[in-house]
Amino acid sequence: MHEPQSHAAISQSAIWRQLQEQAGEIKKRHLSELFAENAGRAQRFSLELPEFLLDYSKNHLDEAALVNLLRLAKEADLEQWRADFFAGKPINATEGRPVLHPALRGGLAQDLVVGGESVTELAEAELERLKKFVVLLHNGDLTSYTGKRITDVVNLGVGGSHLGPQTAIEALRAHRKGDVAVHFVSNVDGAQLTDVLAGLDAESTLFIVSSKTFTTSETMTNARSALKWLQRVAPEASFESLRQAHFVAVTSSPDKALQFGVLPERTFRFWDWVGGRFSLWSAIGLPIAIACGFETFRALLDGAASMDRHFREAPLEENAPVIMALLSVWYCTFMGYPAHAVLPYEQALHMLPAYLQQADMESNGKSTTRAGDEVDYATGPLIWGQTGINGQHAFYQYLHQSPEVVPADFIGSVAPGHDLEGHHEILLANMFAQSQALMNGVDAESVERELAAKGLSADEIKRLAPFKVHRGGKPSNTILLKELSPHSLGALIALYEHKIFAQGVILQIYSFDQWGVELGKGLANKLEPKLASGDLAGEDGSTVQLIEYYRRVKTGAVTPAEPSAVEMAESAGEQA
Amino acid sequence: MHEPQSHAAISQSAIWRQLQEQAGEIKKRHLSELFAENAGRAQRFSLELPEFLLDYSKNHLDEAALVNLLRLAKEADLEQWRADFFAGKPINATEGRPVLHPALRGGLAQDLVVGGESVTELAEAELERLKKFVVLLHNGDLTSYTGKRITDVVNLGVGGSHLGPQTAIEALRAHRKGDVAVHFVSNVDGAQLTDVLAGLDAESTLFIVSSKTFTTSETMTNARSALKWLQRVAPEASFESLRQAHFVAVTSSPDKALQFGVLPERTFRFWDWVGGRFSLWSAIGLPIAIACGFETFRALLDGAASMDRHFREAPLEENAPVIMALLSVWYCTFMGYPAHAVLPYEQALHMLPAYLQQADMESNGKSTTRAGDEVDYATGPLIWGQTGINGQHAFYQYLHQSPEVVPADFIGSVAPGHDLEGHHEILLANMFAQSQALMNGVDAESVERELAAKGLSADEIKRLAPFKVHRGGKPSNTILLKELSPHSLGALIALYEHKIFAQGVILQIYSFDQWGVELGKGLANKLEPKLASGDLAGEDGSTVQLIEYYRRVKTGAVTPAEPSAVEMAESAGEQA
Repeated sequence: MHEPQSHAAISQSAIWRQLQEQAGEIKKRHLSELFAENAGRAQRFSLELPEFLLDYSKNHLDEAALVNLLRLAKEADLEQWRADFFAGKPINATEGRPVLHPALRGGLAQDLVVGGESVTELAEAELERLKKFVVLLHNGDLTSYTGKRITDVVNLGVGGSHLGPQTAIEALRAHRKGDVAVHFVSNVDGAQLTDVLAGLDAESTLFIVSSKTFTTSETMTNARSALKWLQRVAPEASFESLRQAHFVAVTSSPDKALQFGVLPERTFRFWDWVGGRFSLWSAIGLPIAIACGFETFRALLDGAASMDRHFREAPLEENAPVIMALLSVWYCTFMGYPAHAVLPYEQALHMLPAYLQQADMESNGKSTTRAGDEVDYATGPLIWGQTGINGQHAFYQYLHQSPEVVPADFIGSVAPGHDLEGHHEILLANMFAQSQALMNGVDAESVERELAAKGLSADEIKRLAPFKVHRGGKPSNTILLKELSPHSLGALIALYEHKIFAQGVILQIYSFDQWGVELGKGLANKLEPKLASGDLAGEDGSTVQLIEYYRRVKTGAVTPAEPSAVEMAESAGEQA
Repeated sequence: MHEPQSHAAISQSAIWRQLQEQAGEIKKRHLSELFAENAGRAQRFSLELPEFLLDYSKNHLDEAALVNLLRLAKEADLEQWRADFFAGKPINATEGRPVLHPALRGGLAQDLVVGGESVTELAEAELERLKKFVVLLHNGDLTSYTGKRITDVVNLGVGGSHLGPQTAIEALRAHRKGDVAVHFVSNVDGAQLTDVLAGLDAESTLFIVSSKTFTTSETMTNARSALKWLQRVAPEASFESLRQAHFVAVTSSPDKALQFGVLPERTFRFWDWVGGRFSLWSAIGLPIAIACGFETFRALLDGAASMDRHFREAPLEENAPVIMALLSVWYCTFMGYPAHAVLPYEQALHMLPAYLQQADMESNGKSTTRAGDEVDYATGPLIWGQTGINGQHAFYQYLHQSPEVVPADFIGSVAPGHDLEGHHEILLANMFAQSQALMNGVDAESVERELAAKGLSADEIKRLAPFKVHRGGKPSNTILLKELSPHSLGALIALYEHKIFAQGVILQIYSFDQWGVELGKGLANKLEPKLASGDLAGEDGSTVQLIEYYRRVKTGAVTPAEPSAVEMAESAGEQA
């Protein structure tokens, strides 16, 4: 398998042991001390990129630790891996594939030939097809089986075929274009499809079936139900003709789309060198182009390509994704902080935490090293979060006063995405204040002074003060965008993509496969018929109990849930 | 302060030490072993309540551990605390208040007098007012300043004034009633208010300003901007008359609502014995009653009251919230697993993880014991999650193959909330399969057999197998509802509420205050004027740098973000 250089497990290296010691030491120091002793700290531990300022000064980091973290990256051959990545080497080794999502956005230094084809040409040709399709749609030239203009598009897809497009469309609300509405159905729970379709007219609705393999059970189940729904408006129409008029496919398996009945000219491709969780730059991004226009989609790609350039060219110590990767390794692996919070203050970025959950956790939630051994260290972070203001009124209590330390990324934008007066200053003041509060905390003395100023008695102060102390010392990055634009959004997402890759390289794991999703999928296929058959031989006691309960309740063998007093009274009345 | 009995720190008790040892031992045992040695395990570690089956058998738990966990609960005086809670003792001691949200839903064993008033009567009277208001609204008898019927209601509120109502309305989509649409604006980012208002007609829009203190900065800022928006349709109208016609208040500070200009008959109250994160049962739930009808809201309350009864009356070993609390203590505090995943398979419950983030993390994300000492143990969990199917295609890789262990709650419903064929069986098969896969995993031998069956060579098998191994042994609860109804939703939320309370009691922390949210709020108020003034004396280097960057970008002193190649070409053309 692809391995630029064979070497021992990185956790056995001298630098690793040094970093362990350093982590133990610097953990004990308060962040505010680090600022006190170095007036230039904020500038030293910041990077200004064209799109944003990355301030990583509020971290448990000093010159010596950073030097060694950078040495760790060298030791892990990060530069060689980076070169191999952009050169199209098969770095997704367990699947035997190169990883070339940068090719989709013009992010390669030079074109590559994979399987006899130029990846840049493939990508550009497909983009050209997308563009034409979107123009057709926006111009009202796309019509349904009954000849009505298409006004609504429903994306049927889950995971990488859902999160990227919806996250981007939400983020680019200010850039909507045209009057075709885009909807998403990802869950196989029929309630979601039912809800979405309830507001739509079948005669003007188009479905995008978005699935890399075109076999995703949830997506194909939704596609089949969508087809049935369509048939209600055109009962005389064959399924075949409805499929042709109302379905678009986005897939790496165009043959399967054809089998399903989607027209070849309505089938958009991507390739096995594009991982699902990195596919929003491919035809999977079609909903973005529909909602915001093709030029906006193109600007998103350009922004990502600018980050590709930065990641490819900047020396490690000035390389934003590399710095973020090193900090994540520092916290997860050396300090034992397993979780990382993503806290966007822009409402438009509300889906970014969910997006990054997949991007990061599906990539680095692994425990087998590239050599096939079990890791003896913690790997990638548990990513979670919400928009900052909502978080402040929900879980920030935990960030401030739990004994657990959760490093966080604060993300905001200088320019507001609206024109309401006063709101944006409050928003950003909150963002700056929260990272400041997490860093500095407030000690008992200050709390006591404050309570005394409020006129509390000595007894009351003694009693209350311990609960108001914040120990502080909680680390964070701040990513302050100049503005949230298609271009900066592309750069921001690509920043995280490369952070994830760099972290995986350092951890000596394969970031681009996802074998951990296979087992559950297989078991679900096995259990599904058992729900009906009740043949549970060989299943564990809990699974048997759950399915038997399901079957008992379903067949009415169990009395219904306890009725409310009102319902009981009503029911008594009915029976009387 | 309220303390039923003075005793030493619980972490110094003999039972604590025993549990530490037991945790260390049982952690080493594979969950599938525990099933293999006890055929009755699933039944033994399950509780069947009227609304649902709680199967907690897939946990690192045996008879001896459970016995000691129950002893820990006794040692922590849980029964006395429970009695004091329902008796209205001031168990929210740092704020000197009782905690009586069960009174809002008829969940007390007997009425209580607080501040000279019967809490049951207060709650019932306010419910009666809500009911009349909702009937008025549903009947179209509520009109705007210009005499138009109210068709849209916008809830302005954040945290407890937002999450509960929106979570419940989403969960009860199948129970919508009437044609008044409800919208939510929680973020002070003006983009959210702008987006919501863009779709509305000011002449038929009513705002609910929902704030316990009626001073919440974000909410009041949104309320003021809403008022300006209203004035555009009635430029001749005074702010006062618009406030009277278009605003409703829900608050514990009706005097402040009056000052804002809301009519007393449009002001709904709750009381300081209702915490924000437990307030959805109060007038804060008004949006639920508007969206789903008052009877549905009442059924939600009844369901929660049924759980109050269960929690109050069931012996600890048969008490679902207590069992869940003990398991959470077991994992967070004794096993060192800080995070807990909430994985609802019903799409309608998609906001439950966010709701429980506040409920749990704001309650038990604390590090000061009731005695005022710093804890020497881990406290409450980091709650996170997504709907199960979306999670499977996003972060389940991490659950299955990360070295970290994240206990999880799987939540599903036997009855589907829709009538599409085939979907629900796939949904539930996935839920059952995932908890099974997490528990059992798959070992190298099975993987190798499977790969051999696919025809892979011995070399390939050796190379690939390590990546496909799942160690298993990942614990979970399953809560299988008979159906997702208003009643069962009430019971489900109350189940978690009491779990949180019981866990806090055992951890000897105060679960009902939230001092950790004060510091950041104060700092935000301090920083906000500095964004404009630039007077940054006394601030740390990072805060100075961030605000200076903000000011530089805002005033155009920094060049705009790097333009794309296309933009550069265009701009070159323009300049030529």
